[in-house]
Amino acid sequence: MTTELQLIAGCRPLAAPTLSGEEAESTAALFKAIGDPARVRIVNLLASSRGAVCACEFEPALGLSQPTVSHHLKKLTDAGLLDRDQRGKWAFFSINPEAAAKLAGLLDLKEVTDVDSCC
Amino acid sequence: MTTELQLIAGCRPLAAPTLSGEEAESTAALFKAIGDPARVRIVNLLASSRGAVCACEFEPALGLSQPTVSHHLKKLTDAGLLDRDQRGKWAFFSINPEAAAKLAGLLDLKEVTDVDSCC
Repeated sequence: MTTELQLIAGCRPLAAPTLSGEEAESTAALFKAIGDPARVRIVNLLASSRGAVCACEFEPALGLSQPTVSHHLKKLTDAGLLDRDQRGKWAFFSINPEAAAKLAGLLDLKEVTDVDSCC
Repeated sequence: MTTELQLIAGCRPLAAPTLSGEEAESTAALFKAIGDPARVRIVNLLASSRGAVCACEFEPALGLSQPTVSHHLKKLTDAGLLDRDQRGKWAFFSINPEAAAKLAGLLDLKEVTDVDSCC
């Protein structure tokens, strides 16, 4: 979990004047994690639900097998986008609020800074 | 260019209660296009510059070869994220404002809707 949090922590808004190679790597990893139709639908389901969602709910909702759902949930959790809470037999997932705020900030491209372009 | 604009047009905010398979595909394609460190840095450079940036500026700024830069610029342009403007020998690139607004909206996960979760 520490690794995932560090991944998120290493991201900076894209509109920042400079971005180190490491920051670019962690930012890209975050985008890559969500760059899959099934993961977009998982995040969509979580974003439109009130609280944590049981892993068992994704299978019927997405029409995917449980191993496939588990694979995608793991990828999103590893990237720091989802929080996982084990309750007995099932794990419950929710969107990490800090990650959501970071992601929204990363894509706030409308706030263009005042730095001069080279051309 | 029509294809790229359709890709953007097909995207819906992740927090929308439902997302069709097609919408999930186009949304994922957009995230995937930016899920690469070099492309994150290109978008970062463009977001922090005032206007369009000459393709020739990315090579020294990123330390990448011109063919590599061209490849990444093409991927981002094909996804509808960048606008391309040919001026004589060189092409100039800028962030498509509509695409930027769409991306920011897609990741506005904080606005959780009032739909009941199944669990």
